[in-house]
Amino acid sequence: MSIPNHFERLATEGTARTGRLTTPHGPVRTPAFMPVGTAGAMKGMHWRDVRDAGSDIVLGNTYHLMLRPGAERIAALGGLQAFTGWNGPMLTDSGGFQVMSLSELRKVKESAVTFRSHIDGAIVELSPERSIEVQRLLGSDIAMQMDECVRLPAERADIDRAMQLSLRWAERSRRAFESAPSGYLLFGIVQGGDVAELRRMSARGLVDIGFHGYAIGGLAVGEPQPVMLAMIEEVAPFLPSDRPRYLMGVGTPDDILKAVERGVDMFDCVMPTRNGRHGMAFTRYGQINLRNARHADDPRPLDETSSWPTTRNTSRAYLHHLVRSGETLGAMLLSEINVAYYQHLMKEIRNAITQGLFADFCERTRRDWENGDIAMR
Amino acid sequence: MSIPNHFERLATEGTARTGRLTTPHGPVRTPAFMPVGTAGAMKGMHWRDVRDAGSDIVLGNTYHLMLRPGAERIAALGGLQAFTGWNGPMLTDSGGFQVMSLSELRKVKESAVTFRSHIDGAIVELSPERSIEVQRLLGSDIAMQMDECVRLPAERADIDRAMQLSLRWAERSRRAFESAPSGYLLFGIVQGGDVAELRRMSARGLVDIGFHGYAIGGLAVGEPQPVMLAMIEEVAPFLPSDRPRYLMGVGTPDDILKAVERGVDMFDCVMPTRNGRHGMAFTRYGQINLRNARHADDPRPLDETSSWPTTRNTSRAYLHHLVRSGETLGAMLLSEINVAYYQHLMKEIRNAITQGLFADFCERTRRDWENGDIAMR
Repeated sequence: MSIPNHFERLATEGTARTGRLTTPHGPVRTPAFMPVGTAGAMKGMHWRDVRDAGSDIVLGNTYHLMLRPGAERIAALGGLQAFTGWNGPMLTDSGGFQVMSLSELRKVKESAVTFRSHIDGAIVELSPERSIEVQRLLGSDIAMQMDECVRLPAERADIDRAMQLSLRWAERSRRAFESAPSGYLLFGIVQGGDVAELRRMSARGLVDIGFHGYAIGGLAVGEPQPVMLAMIEEVAPFLPSDRPRYLMGVGTPDDILKAVERGVDMFDCVMPTRNGRHGMAFTRYGQINLRNARHADDPRPLDETSSWPTTRNTSRAYLHHLVRSGETLGAMLLSEINVAYYQHLMKEIRNAITQGLFADFCERTRRDWENGDIAMR
Repeated sequence: MSIPNHFERLATEGTARTGRLTTPHGPVRTPAFMPVGTAGAMKGMHWRDVRDAGSDIVLGNTYHLMLRPGAERIAALGGLQAFTGWNGPMLTDSGGFQVMSLSELRKVKESAVTFRSHIDGAIVELSPERSIEVQRLLGSDIAMQMDECVRLPAERADIDRAMQLSLRWAERSRRAFESAPSGYLLFGIVQGGDVAELRRMSARGLVDIGFHGYAIGGLAVGEPQPVMLAMIEEVAPFLPSDRPRYLMGVGTPDDILKAVERGVDMFDCVMPTRNGRHGMAFTRYGQINLRNARHADDPRPLDETSSWPTTRNTSRAYLHHLVRSGETLGAMLLSEINVAYYQHLMKEIRNAITQGLFADFCERTRRDWENGDIAMR
């Protein structure tokens, strides 16, 4: 089936690409990092800071939003953008992954998944068709097909079964999406765990169905980084090079750099905000634990060269104090510092690929991370 | 003893006054509301929003800061303003009140209070002289004398003893403050519980010692509002009319309006941020509980006429969702909405007194509160 293309590649270097994805709520510069606003909010961050930090697009979780406040309610309020005040592009997942990880009494059948809500205990059914309907009600710019994700390590037979089921659900998702207005996007999801042959089979099957973009799912679920990278390398050649590729749930800055080298265009991860809430800062010196006593008397900022004012102007001593005291402001400042670091990294990646200097950039960035933090005073 | 005056009255209406207090870190427009940044941070608010909401001055808690991160450390880091990034005036309390309410094994002697830190269990001694030293190390623009505050209801003999002790501590605080550079301020604190005679005695004693300003302490500790107002009325005539008057720990918008009518110039309270964390919004329609189901489908903002963008632009439905979901962003938005409401109220109070329209303003404001929230849709 043919399906229109909303992605434009602007430059490549090796297998790395930079481009622009057009959505109903605006363009997304790729490689793109999507901060995760699970339940219609970024934890500890104002939307204006999410935007100012350089985010073009954010991710919302269908599972959370369908249970509370409810998809029909959000639709009546004008969709996720009007509801939350985030006026840019939004990608929503299908809900399938959280059904597996958060709900109880879940039962996977061919037709649908039934589960008990972790909020009020209600029994809920989620089918590929209902997942698309919910994502349409939310007003999502990029919807994801429903899939079944197997936690690794797993038996090949289980991985195979889930992958085949996901392919059939992909087909149903695609059909259910046909009534969507033009401009909205639907992504298929490659499954197949850590088995190269199943990954290739999944990719081929999805391309036959035809999607606006292709995600690689079922990674960043506990496997070592080399396995993740090997699977990207197996899958990428089977995906159309003119369509965006999204590596779900990834990851550390190092993961992102290596995945971009292998042709990935989009990422999402809770790490910048979650680690921020635990006193960790992402910087060009690597990850820094602000809880560490070495920062208690240090008036220097995390990185005086940062383009983000909070990173450049807030002392390590103050951040240390806030983290040790359990002050909300500590989580707030570190969340924005981390999202700003991620978005700055993505911007530098895009610029480097544009200029044909991505290999140099990767080398320099890794050297900075490896050199570690500035010396104690 | 004579002591310089940093307060200028600009207009009066009845016993209500508006004026300007000059501090080393800038002017404070009175009547002034001081949001409370207990441990060097406003809970759930960026400092820029505290400022943008119209706050001229904030309060820091000596007890918390001396225990963590420590007064000497903050001094080495350049004082509270440099440490926190709040570059405006700061008032610090003496630490005495929190010793009574938060620490264990406290022992009040003539010379000092000893107590066990609620953070690490260390035994700490706080004398009037040490309290002033700590506040000087913090770089506080306005320091408070150490006092003993009795929780009401209490026996007259206990109130009397604490008031007399507080007067002797006031004298010692004043002596300890003599080495402070010019421009920094020290306030005495009127005690005497709910006993008019003791209140008057306390006020006269403090005025004999001489302070830059006078606080009324030991109220808003559980007594009914009429008792609080009666005590203000007893005390005010004994305080020099050219010095600022600060009602500690107060209060609701209604408390503030009534205290301003009785000649009070300064207030502090955790209510806007604490109630915000519990889903409550202060508005011109009175207090609104966002947890209430009536807001779940309501796309209207809390107050479309508000001068604060978050109040004007955020839907009740979204706030309701954030509060119900326990999202940090809900506490963040409601804290700023509430601080902005308080500061807007203070601004309107100042303008009304300047124009000689304060009585009208009070009447109109109370009518709005009494009319309650806008009708459900």
